[in-house]
Amino acid sequence: MDHLHALSQYGKNPRGGVSRVAYSEPDRQGREYAMQLMRDAGLDVTLDAAGNLIGSRSGSDPSLKPLLIGSHIDSVIEGGNYDGDVGSLSAIEVAQSLREHSLQLRHPLQVVIFQNEEGGTIGSHAMAAGLTDQVLNSVSSSGKTVRDGIRFLGGDPDKVRQPERQPGSIAAYLELHIEQGGVLEQEKIDIGIVEGIVGIVHSEVTIEGFANHAGTTPMAQRHDALLSAARFIEKVNQAVTSIPGRQVGTVGWVRAQPGVYNVVPGRVTLGLELRDLDRKKFMGLFDQLRADAERIGKLNGTKFSFGEPFIIDPALTNPELQRLIGETAKELRFTTKVMPSGAGHDAQEVSRIGPVGMIFIPSIGGISHAPKEFSRPEDIEHGANVLLQSVLRFDARN
Amino acid sequence: MDHLHALSQYGKNPRGGVSRVAYSEPDRQGREYAMQLMRDAGLDVTLDAAGNLIGSRSGSDPSLKPLLIGSHIDSVIEGGNYDGDVGSLSAIEVAQSLREHSLQLRHPLQVVIFQNEEGGTIGSHAMAAGLTDQVLNSVSSSGKTVRDGIRFLGGDPDKVRQPERQPGSIAAYLELHIEQGGVLEQEKIDIGIVEGIVGIVHSEVTIEGFANHAGTTPMAQRHDALLSAARFIEKVNQAVTSIPGRQVGTVGWVRAQPGVYNVVPGRVTLGLELRDLDRKKFMGLFDQLRADAERIGKLNGTKFSFGEPFIIDPALTNPELQRLIGETAKELRFTTKVMPSGAGHDAQEVSRIGPVGMIFIPSIGGISHAPKEFSRPEDIEHGANVLLQSVLRFDARN
Repeated sequence: MDHLHALSQYGKNPRGGVSRVAYSEPDRQGREYAMQLMRDAGLDVTLDAAGNLIGSRSGSDPSLKPLLIGSHIDSVIEGGNYDGDVGSLSAIEVAQSLREHSLQLRHPLQVVIFQNEEGGTIGSHAMAAGLTDQVLNSVSSSGKTVRDGIRFLGGDPDKVRQPERQPGSIAAYLELHIEQGGVLEQEKIDIGIVEGIVGIVHSEVTIEGFANHAGTTPMAQRHDALLSAARFIEKVNQAVTSIPGRQVGTVGWVRAQPGVYNVVPGRVTLGLELRDLDRKKFMGLFDQLRADAERIGKLNGTKFSFGEPFIIDPALTNPELQRLIGETAKELRFTTKVMPSGAGHDAQEVSRIGPVGMIFIPSIGGISHAPKEFSRPEDIEHGANVLLQSVLRFDARN
Repeated sequence: MDHLHALSQYGKNPRGGVSRVAYSEPDRQGREYAMQLMRDAGLDVTLDAAGNLIGSRSGSDPSLKPLLIGSHIDSVIEGGNYDGDVGSLSAIEVAQSLREHSLQLRHPLQVVIFQNEEGGTIGSHAMAAGLTDQVLNSVSSSGKTVRDGIRFLGGDPDKVRQPERQPGSIAAYLELHIEQGGVLEQEKIDIGIVEGIVGIVHSEVTIEGFANHAGTTPMAQRHDALLSAARFIEKVNQAVTSIPGRQVGTVGWVRAQPGVYNVVPGRVTLGLELRDLDRKKFMGLFDQLRADAERIGKLNGTKFSFGEPFIIDPALTNPELQRLIGETAKELRFTTKVMPSGAGHDAQEVSRIGPVGMIFIPSIGGISHAPKEFSRPEDIEHGANVLLQSVLRFDARN
């Protein structure tokens, strides 16, 4: 908790929470602090070319692949002090505990703090799949390109193939994280065992109607694009909630044109997003909503069109690691729940190269990406203990 | 038609239509052209302090109050060539016809081209009720304040009480205008007899929910302000269309915050507008929708609040003038329909100081305030003839 508090000073907002966006000065300073903690925990700290911090501890069996634990410490703009930080500092704490108890694992241990998770899991993507020029040239929240940001953190963007690891090259990756939703708190459960990170489809939906004078155009003669948008938004909610499961669907943004009191909106664009652990399910919903949209459009002579869908595939965690985390938590007398992660995480990227497991702890009020993000000290302790004991159990078994 | 074509050159848009916003250079040039037409029609042209153009023709009976006819020639940005222009040039044509037939009316005739109708019936308001400092200091579409705009047109903003006329100081005001809706064209009717100009209530509606992660927040735990907004928009349509009458209701703009794919909208603002000839009716609907909004908000734990309603009272035309226009049109063998005007007009302001009558001609496709605004030459001729014969009939009877 002291470390969490100390880290929270880097990028602290006047009105609470933190703005420690990747590649900013507070991000660099926070990483300096984390490196010091790593060294204090006896880890050998290096930086890969992509700017990921890696604290290594050797294992007793040189034939074994490394066991990775970690998370990230960059935040969204006006974010909180738990997302990423809890998992990163707990991973260092695991190394610290091993040192304090003079325990050497059989596996090499690597504590990884991935760079720029919030801007699209850039660091973990670099490790799992490399970075394209398109990603390197994209502009991050800091205002810097990813390329310049990596250089700013001390990495070498000209050598970004170097950190890339091959599938099968790691023993496992375990990540502790706050839930960022309200399920664990509401159901009074200590530990969430993540069964996978949901996939996403999103698409920009355009509705073409006809803009006309709001005073002179009788109701029956209107082609009101916003009325169609309203019916579609309601339909999204109905479609997503009318079938069993934990899928979610959101219309997060909407724009009506010309957008004044006295003109019937002639054109509306909106953002549709669907998430689920099962790609077939969210793509099925997406297709169903396209059909629904066509029907809704016909009601008042408007026309829907859907932009090229942007799709992220679901990433399932390793079933054996799920079981291992569950057994560990039960031994520590914690209640558990197997659940999906609705948010993206570095584990999602790392799952490309090896088995991953994720441990969730409750987020109070389900609030995240906001200054009011909070997890109780006791829940953080529980999570860190589950992480430590899972590492020991994994090391003993594999 | 030649005059309409010539006027359309002032502020002509490359892609069709016209941008002759009040107080712009094209507006000033268009007014110069109109003044020349007035002089050619034998009118004595003056400018009142508010910048309204007044072309006077003396009457034979000095005891009679003036009969006013006219409209405006300013346009919205990217407007059409019929809104205002048809009534203004037809009024000049009436004077021209009187001159050609050497007819002197008993009443003094004043052809008025009001300044800045599109920016809130400023010129006619100055004549009917004066201009406050607040209005004079407000910024018009041209970028100039109304005060600077009046000066730009040759008026004197320091003397804006001068153009103000007292109730009972005019014999009548007759205005020919395009319908701006699609009713006359659809029902194949030649002439609309306006029974009144609808009143308006509009209000900024705010919906407070709770912004949260769109991936981690289960559907049942959301307080989605945009979902509530969607239900409200549908409700506005239902409420307005479920009772008989010609009332209209529009949600013309909407904003969702924070407004990104992956966050459940925590706050939505939208613009509600209702119009009808009967103030009780539109205010009744407004109150009903406030109650509906409260119920809709409760469905998912969101809260509606309504900004201070902005209200424009309906302005009824004079029943005797309605009858007179109807008789005139029938004598000319035109079909007629008594109808409200859904849009605001200078006649609305002038109704404060004397009886007003309005004549509508069809707008093809009901399109207005757009380059595709169009009225057929024969309909314009019909309208101008109804205006001329109504002037003669009024003069003979009163």
